[in-house]
Amino acid sequence: MKIPTPYLMFLGDAPDQLAAKTAAGVAQWRPEWCVGQLRLDGCQADLGLPDKTLQEAAEAGARTLLVGVVNQGGFFNDDWSNTLLAAVDLGYNIASGLHSKLADVPGLADAAAAKGIALFDVRHSTENFDTGKGHKRTGKRFLTVGTDVSVGKMYTSLAVEREMLSRGMKATFRATGQTGIFIAGEGVSVDAVVSDFVSGVAEQLSPDNEPDHWDVVEGQGSLFHAAYAGVTLGLLHGSQPDAVVVCHDPGRPHMRGTPTIPVHSLTETIDVNIAAGRLTNPDIRCIGVAINTSRLSESETADVLGAAEAETGLPAVDPLKNGVARLVDALS
Amino acid sequence: MKIPTPYLMFLGDAPDQLAAKTAAGVAQWRPEWCVGQLRLDGCQADLGLPDKTLQEAAEAGARTLLVGVVNQGGFFNDDWSNTLLAAVDLGYNIASGLHSKLADVPGLADAAAAKGIALFDVRHSTENFDTGKGHKRTGKRFLTVGTDVSVGKMYTSLAVEREMLSRGMKATFRATGQTGIFIAGEGVSVDAVVSDFVSGVAEQLSPDNEPDHWDVVEGQGSLFHAAYAGVTLGLLHGSQPDAVVVCHDPGRPHMRGTPTIPVHSLTETIDVNIAAGRLTNPDIRCIGVAINTSRLSESETADVLGAAEAETGLPAVDPLKNGVARLVDALS
Repeated sequence: MKIPTPYLMFLGDAPDQLAAKTAAGVAQWRPEWCVGQLRLDGCQADLGLPDKTLQEAAEAGARTLLVGVVNQGGFFNDDWSNTLLAAVDLGYNIASGLHSKLADVPGLADAAAAKGIALFDVRHSTENFDTGKGHKRTGKRFLTVGTDVSVGKMYTSLAVEREMLSRGMKATFRATGQTGIFIAGEGVSVDAVVSDFVSGVAEQLSPDNEPDHWDVVEGQGSLFHAAYAGVTLGLLHGSQPDAVVVCHDPGRPHMRGTPTIPVHSLTETIDVNIAAGRLTNPDIRCIGVAINTSRLSESETADVLGAAEAETGLPAVDPLKNGVARLVDALS
Repeated sequence: MKIPTPYLMFLGDAPDQLAAKTAAGVAQWRPEWCVGQLRLDGCQADLGLPDKTLQEAAEAGARTLLVGVVNQGGFFNDDWSNTLLAAVDLGYNIASGLHSKLADVPGLADAAAAKGIALFDVRHSTENFDTGKGHKRTGKRFLTVGTDVSVGKMYTSLAVEREMLSRGMKATFRATGQTGIFIAGEGVSVDAVVSDFVSGVAEQLSPDNEPDHWDVVEGQGSLFHAAYAGVTLGLLHGSQPDAVVVCHDPGRPHMRGTPTIPVHSLTETIDVNIAAGRLTNPDIRCIGVAINTSRLSESETADVLGAAEAETGLPAVDPLKNGVARLVDALS
């Protein structure tokens, strides 16, 4: 079931802009779905959207209150709870990316049932999944992979979907994490799924499709991350991509969270992903590199992208600075 | 918390011997923990243990009723429920390997709380886990890996633990699946853990230990299985083994459950496991091969083991027919 749009973005009492990172991603990629933002006293985040009350946003058509913010302490405090209960009373659906569940807010589940509206805890899927089958499916699939975690895989996938659609290609972004789910309106947080079902979930996320349709799957983790490589491998096998792009942040001193493990090279990352991906799609190939150069000067950026092209023999871009046209060109 | 021993093995109305495979594994590896078996009308399985009533087994010292059988339909029928409730009334703890939870038996959770006994659903861990850290731990670790699923990884690990202990070595079997948990009295079903935590669970299962102590970890799945490779990789990274043995069944026409995917060679399996395992333990090496030759004649067995040794340059044994002394020899 898709999350009904448009959204009113709830920022609560976010202590800074970073706490509203998820909401900011949604506002960036789906501005047409965001009718406004609702901020409580002390909120230090701002999405640049008009501030609206629950009543005002409802009148503007908002159908879901989106909790795309990290709260302080990880639970719903009284101010938040009162806002959520008032939203349900006005007929809003509620979608949350928090670890705590909406049903843990006293009275909220009963109120939602009485009103006939839906509560979406996107980190906690209630769907039933099957284990992976490994069968080849019709249609084409694209997946972002990474040298590390948090290197721009979601951003790159969304940029590729946008570029494909702008060319009149058939493409659908497939979300595998919470921000992506809010942006797509649907999807599954694969890292919150029972491990036996990760590749099965990936298969369900990108089902049979028209021969010229591209599922653009949001990658997760890295095959070289000691904590998350299993999630990455299950997603790779289930997505059975025809094409991957390797995403990279050149500023990492080591793998994020594991100081003893170095970041592997682009070619090592490509080789291990291609070798593993061949299990479910022998035709898998890497078609390019996406590098986050946000901390680099113009000349440093040119050096880094040039070095990546020389190392891999593939087009290398910063999706934010250069766009991804050269990556989509490389698909044909 | 360990499952209290000894056990009374509950076989219910198992339709055949295969349905009691889990119980049979426990009876084979921990006969000293099995005071008897309890079979309902129509049970077609037999562990070769004395049949005992709940009362008789309790008097013989049994502390846990072990449900090591697949029931028909996947839920607890009335006959089973009555037995479980009667067991709690007599002070038994109950341990189950079924997908359905013991707490779903009407009245059982309340009865257990009133009696102060424990219900163990070994497929559904209630522990809190952390994500993997990738830090090197003290002590030595051994892990079984496989060309496919169900190729004797648990059996081989248990045989290696037994051989080590018989030589006076320090060794502890670490269980990662339901049968193994009953045999160890503790452990975690890693394929039932949320995917984000698989390598973290593996780290917790084999914590820091004495320099000459071996954790003998039960392997799961295969890096070449389209459904389960992610679980296998997380377990490999978290276990950070110093030594692996590759387990193999020479009779497979293809990977179990995925007819389009062939079984990879022993050397391919070793290479991909060693390459992946180096992320968390650069000193990982494969020290041997364990082959299930149960369907082969004596001369076929000799041929298969000889070919495996020629292919890999490592000792190859059938743990059941030959024992695993040559594998343990290869560790030093």
